[in-house]
Amino acid sequence: MIIDVHGHYTTAPKALEAWRNRQIAAVGNAAQMPAASALRIGDDELRESIEANQLRLMRERGLDVVVFSPRASFMAHHVGDFAVSSAWASICNALCYRVSRLFPDRFVPAAMLPQSPGVDTASCIPELVRCVEHYGNVAVNLNPDPSGGHWTSPPLSDRYWYPIYEKLVEYDVPAMIHVSTSCNACFHTTGAHYLNADTTAFMQCLTADLFGDFPTLRFVIPHGGGAVPYHWGRFRAQEMKKPLLEEHLLRNIYFDTCVYHQPGIDLLARVIPVGNILFASEMIGAVRGIDPQTGHHYDDTRRYIEAAHVDPEDRRKIYEANARRVYPRLDALLKAQKR
Amino acid sequence: MIIDVHGHYTTAPKALEAWRNRQIAAVGNAAQMPAASALRIGDDELRESIEANQLRLMRERGLDVVVFSPRASFMAHHVGDFAVSSAWASICNALCYRVSRLFPDRFVPAAMLPQSPGVDTASCIPELVRCVEHYGNVAVNLNPDPSGGHWTSPPLSDRYWYPIYEKLVEYDVPAMIHVSTSCNACFHTTGAHYLNADTTAFMQCLTADLFGDFPTLRFVIPHGGGAVPYHWGRFRAQEMKKPLLEEHLLRNIYFDTCVYHQPGIDLLARVIPVGNILFASEMIGAVRGIDPQTGHHYDDTRRYIEAAHVDPEDRRKIYEANARRVYPRLDALLKAQKR
Repeated sequence: MIIDVHGHYTTAPKALEAWRNRQIAAVGNAAQMPAASALRIGDDELRESIEANQLRLMRERGLDVVVFSPRASFMAHHVGDFAVSSAWASICNALCYRVSRLFPDRFVPAAMLPQSPGVDTASCIPELVRCVEHYGNVAVNLNPDPSGGHWTSPPLSDRYWYPIYEKLVEYDVPAMIHVSTSCNACFHTTGAHYLNADTTAFMQCLTADLFGDFPTLRFVIPHGGGAVPYHWGRFRAQEMKKPLLEEHLLRNIYFDTCVYHQPGIDLLARVIPVGNILFASEMIGAVRGIDPQTGHHYDDTRRYIEAAHVDPEDRRKIYEANARRVYPRLDALLKAQKR
Repeated sequence: MIIDVHGHYTTAPKALEAWRNRQIAAVGNAAQMPAASALRIGDDELRESIEANQLRLMRERGLDVVVFSPRASFMAHHVGDFAVSSAWASICNALCYRVSRLFPDRFVPAAMLPQSPGVDTASCIPELVRCVEHYGNVAVNLNPDPSGGHWTSPPLSDRYWYPIYEKLVEYDVPAMIHVSTSCNACFHTTGAHYLNADTTAFMQCLTADLFGDFPTLRFVIPHGGGAVPYHWGRFRAQEMKKPLLEEHLLRNIYFDTCVYHQPGIDLLARVIPVGNILFASEMIGAVRGIDPQTGHHYDDTRRYIEAAHVDPEDRRKIYEANARRVYPRLDALLKAQKR
């Protein structure tokens, strides 16, 4: 089985974006704020948006299951206040849940949180509870920079984040560390901010003892870990007085395979212990189109894994076993489906 | 010959730091501001600080020449105003110049600029002129984020930076894009901010047409280009409507080899055209110590280049020929020395 731990609902019906635009236009003007009920998307529309896109590519590429969360760049936690983020997260999570009900053997939901810059993270708990307990979410996406490129929140090791971690540990649910749109002109969203956030999050963990406080907390760092595997020597050298990376971080931190060329995946597989690599493609996401050097889609990451120097048993770990271990609720769901 | 294009004066006599601390303490209090003349460092002290450190390692590792600039993390352009940065840059650049006079066949100076957040970049020109015309500097370090991790300046493609570019083009001098200390708690200076800045700068250039305006402007992106080579597929996919990376950026952008493990250097050499790779070690810098996996210093990057699948002619380019091409004033200096 091949599990893709990193998919977003980037192809949602246009009505979703229209509703969001109405909401954004109404920020600061409660009377104009659209009701959640004003958004109506039928099951047929959802089915269509998936079948023609993600599901088509999953079939073409032989992917079985996708951990499926709201579009990352649309989370935009910097917009408005907590109430705005809360209404928006609730809508987006409900849609991913509905997709998971329409395609129960293909899509497993992961939640965005109603984060808002400067707001107590305990405010995210009700949505987290709802998503795990009622929607069967197996993971959450945690935005380390809800300001959208201004980095005004404390590092992930700060107690500011602990209410979320406590709930994640209680549920045994991992967090993918994933920023959203950059509203800082310095940072291109997918070409800089995403990768920077991955590197930043890893280093925040390296210089702290977060996993001493939460030994079972698990973070998935997407986009192949940003710059981290390429600079693995630098990070090994910067362990400072911390124990070796393997003990200090690699019981808790995992990297996905959203690296869109063969040399990158080869490096990832060479440097990072196989138990810490999770298959993912982030399709259909930021990196679209066909690589003229290969004739295949950049985000068809399975091809790179197949071509990498990885033995079959390790490949099975990357494709399936690691994901079942890091996402126990996904494993339980698959087992309930006799898979 | 082996030219290291990325060395900083990290081992300057303690009196330098003491003076800086006095200066920082006096920010906002002109009466307390120390005079430049209050800093006295003799030639013997300079000699000692180099001979026991950089020069010793250069001999051990077989490096011939280092492009030598003030300590990057100490630039701290966020401290005080332009006058503060100006006094500090002037002192630091003078020291590197003196080192280059004491060891004329070993150290070639590159300048830090007296940047200050929000200040017109034309204010940097007098120091730049002095460093090139009177001190024989062959390059400058340009900080894309003088705020120190708050990223409040416009992207490098913005006209804000054009006064500096015009002077660089006039002098045919390249800029290494190098941030300084992070004062944002989210970003560890050398483990996140440096690498993020490298990635950010590359993407700022990718999404703009800066080199259309300045076809001969050259940027060296240090630390192996941050996350860029590892994610080369992502960047190729994000070319958008720009011409291919080779034409759009690689006539103007170069990467150094400050990547501190073999797999990283192997990836760099595999992905980036050899003409765009410049040998560097950033010794003695942020990444110190001995790699227990190899028994050698992490920053002994020559070992990685020697072990990489690079043919001898290409290795000569990485060690010498590219640097002579990208730093014409360095080439002229070496030729004047009959090298």
